[in-house]
Amino acid sequence: MEFARRVSEMRASEIRELLELTAHPDIISFAGGLPSPHSFPVKKIEELSLRVLKKEGTTALQYGATEGVREFRRTIAKRMKTKFKMKCDEENILITTGAQQALDLTTKIFINPRDLIVVEIPTYIGALCSFRNYQSKFLTVGIDSEGMKTQELESKLKKLGKEKRKKVKFIYSIPNFHNPKGITLSLERRKHLIEISEKYKIPILEDDPYIELRYKGKPLPPMKSMDKNGLVIYTSTFSKILSPGFRTGWIVASKELTRKLAIAKQGTDLSTNVFCQYVANEYIKTGSMDKHIPKIIKMYKKREKIMLDSLERYFPRECSWTKPSGGMFLWVELPKKIDTKKMFKEAVKHKVAYVHGAAFCVDNSGHNEMRLNFSNQDEDKIEEGIKRLANLIKKKL
Amino acid sequence: MEFARRVSEMRASEIRELLELTAHPDIISFAGGLPSPHSFPVKKIEELSLRVLKKEGTTALQYGATEGVREFRRTIAKRMKTKFKMKCDEENILITTGAQQALDLTTKIFINPRDLIVVEIPTYIGALCSFRNYQSKFLTVGIDSEGMKTQELESKLKKLGKEKRKKVKFIYSIPNFHNPKGITLSLERRKHLIEISEKYKIPILEDDPYIELRYKGKPLPPMKSMDKNGLVIYTSTFSKILSPGFRTGWIVASKELTRKLAIAKQGTDLSTNVFCQYVANEYIKTGSMDKHIPKIIKMYKKREKIMLDSLERYFPRECSWTKPSGGMFLWVELPKKIDTKKMFKEAVKHKVAYVHGAAFCVDNSGHNEMRLNFSNQDEDKIEEGIKRLANLIKKKL
Repeated sequence: MEFARRVSEMRASEIRELLELTAHPDIISFAGGLPSPHSFPVKKIEELSLRVLKKEGTTALQYGATEGVREFRRTIAKRMKTKFKMKCDEENILITTGAQQALDLTTKIFINPRDLIVVEIPTYIGALCSFRNYQSKFLTVGIDSEGMKTQELESKLKKLGKEKRKKVKFIYSIPNFHNPKGITLSLERRKHLIEISEKYKIPILEDDPYIELRYKGKPLPPMKSMDKNGLVIYTSTFSKILSPGFRTGWIVASKELTRKLAIAKQGTDLSTNVFCQYVANEYIKTGSMDKHIPKIIKMYKKREKIMLDSLERYFPRECSWTKPSGGMFLWVELPKKIDTKKMFKEAVKHKVAYVHGAAFCVDNSGHNEMRLNFSNQDEDKIEEGIKRLANLIKKKL
Repeated sequence: MEFARRVSEMRASEIRELLELTAHPDIISFAGGLPSPHSFPVKKIEELSLRVLKKEGTTALQYGATEGVREFRRTIAKRMKTKFKMKCDEENILITTGAQQALDLTTKIFINPRDLIVVEIPTYIGALCSFRNYQSKFLTVGIDSEGMKTQELESKLKKLGKEKRKKVKFIYSIPNFHNPKGITLSLERRKHLIEISEKYKIPILEDDPYIELRYKGKPLPPMKSMDKNGLVIYTSTFSKILSPGFRTGWIVASKELTRKLAIAKQGTDLSTNVFCQYVANEYIKTGSMDKHIPKIIKMYKKREKIMLDSLERYFPRECSWTKPSGGMFLWVELPKKIDTKKMFKEAVKHKVAYVHGAAFCVDNSGHNEMRLNFSNQDEDKIEEGIKRLANLIKKKL
């Protein structure tokens, strides 16, 4: 039995293994990346599930089109168009098995072994899993307070030379409330990234799962809404606004790309869960989603505030952290001499958990950094958890 | 924008395009591969969905483990063990997004471009889509009334020579009520296939979606139950016994393979729909499934009988067809001079549809053959549809 070459480059997510360690109820964990279970509209899902089964029973339980349920694609297209100003109709929408599948399919249609994907340092671990499954290599770009350093990207692309540049297949960006950094890509940088994409004919994979979870400030337009040449593949998901267990996400892309991604999807899973597409469709169409999202925002905004206040109060001044305008995560930088991966075991002994920064970095950096999740920890635990972490860090200084 | 090399080898399923043509209500279609919507236990799904939401609400809606919900894996393992005599526990089970994903993941971990997969002539089109997505090539083996011609396979493997044989990564087999042929692999051939697999160290991908739909004769043991060396990857699905829209299937494999497949799955879609895993778990555990399957069998058995009787009555004697002991399809061979692909448009004009045989054959054969589906056509339409088809064929003789 001999495996494909790609298997040697596949890696189990570091987070996943670590989450098992932090599952103990005594541990105050900021490690996971989960929405709060209190954010799920369980009663509404009950009601909509029954309605779907009564109204569409046999259709919702039957095989469905690979592209997704037509009416649902129409609903998504309408929302993307009216709320986010994307030029699209249902033919530009592909329903995916979570946004994770959008990352997998995009990699599937673009990446030959050793092709390059532009990724931020740090970036979403799940994306790295998808990319590595196809033996991609990476062109890395840093992040500052305005998001991806697009100047750095442009000069790196220039330096590559024409032949090597052809191997850069797409730019992966998480523009809003970045996972893990919590940073939002500024309008100027969004424009610049689109310019770079057009100049070098490199598509952008715009991964936008947190866009609806803004706690302050003015929403910025998705890059997809500025995309004149069909170079942006936009993806988002119901995981943070309805249910991650539903595994329902979508892509907005040019018709040509939507078609190619759909053909790739066909052999992958035939279609996304049809029943849940119907439920999610009703969730939007009945207005339940727009009524529910403000409740999630209220809950997470409060949790973030408690975390930020506690960091301010307890963390030593040698540390700094991001102050996200939305999403589920923030990012802490500790003094260089502290290795957050090494410190993790001690943290668990102190009954608190986080994810060490290096797990998100493909360039072997991030050793003195960590990601903290605030969406999935009860309000009364957050302060205590940050206190425990602060005490541990102080001992290291 | 430059795509991956694999994209040029991807193909949209021929069936899929053709199904759009046959969707008109006037057309009696034997073309699709769908279970009958009357086979879905809609009321039971309503009941179980409510129960899951009340009992497990937040867990069933949250992210779940990539391997699947532990309790569900345990339930499946128990059924595979007690009903089908497979040596397995929950650690041998991977829940997949339909059996289609099992095909995709197996290909993902085994196939480098130009590696070989053993496929039958004819074989399941969706499998060919998965395989081609990874640029596989094929080693083809014929089927007779006992299923895959294992002697032919063995002599082809012998002739390959050692180096070339190393490129044969797995044997794809649909042992029960084969799609599209309707044939069942005999016990002797099952044993022989296992022998070949062991002798040449080539894993078997045993795709068994129809196993529960046997209408006559004695059940045969799955090859997985005879597998002593962890060489069989077994997959089945809830698509034909609960709901295809649920996209819920599973793999039974050695722990080593289960782990590798799970790592590949992680980057693909994180996990299968969690909510539907809970519902399917209840469906088995409450005994509802074992009560429901006999109803499906009764319905399909009757439909198959009507189709076989009608073929006997109306089809010219130059034609022959398989007489499946279960499943959803049968296979018709027409006189050599009839090209079923060319005849298709005329068939649609005669308001009847089928899938032409060549669509299932990677070796450019099957031109005078066709697949007929009997599970998804109302009883009173089957005779009329076969009559229309017979009239058309008679005109060609």
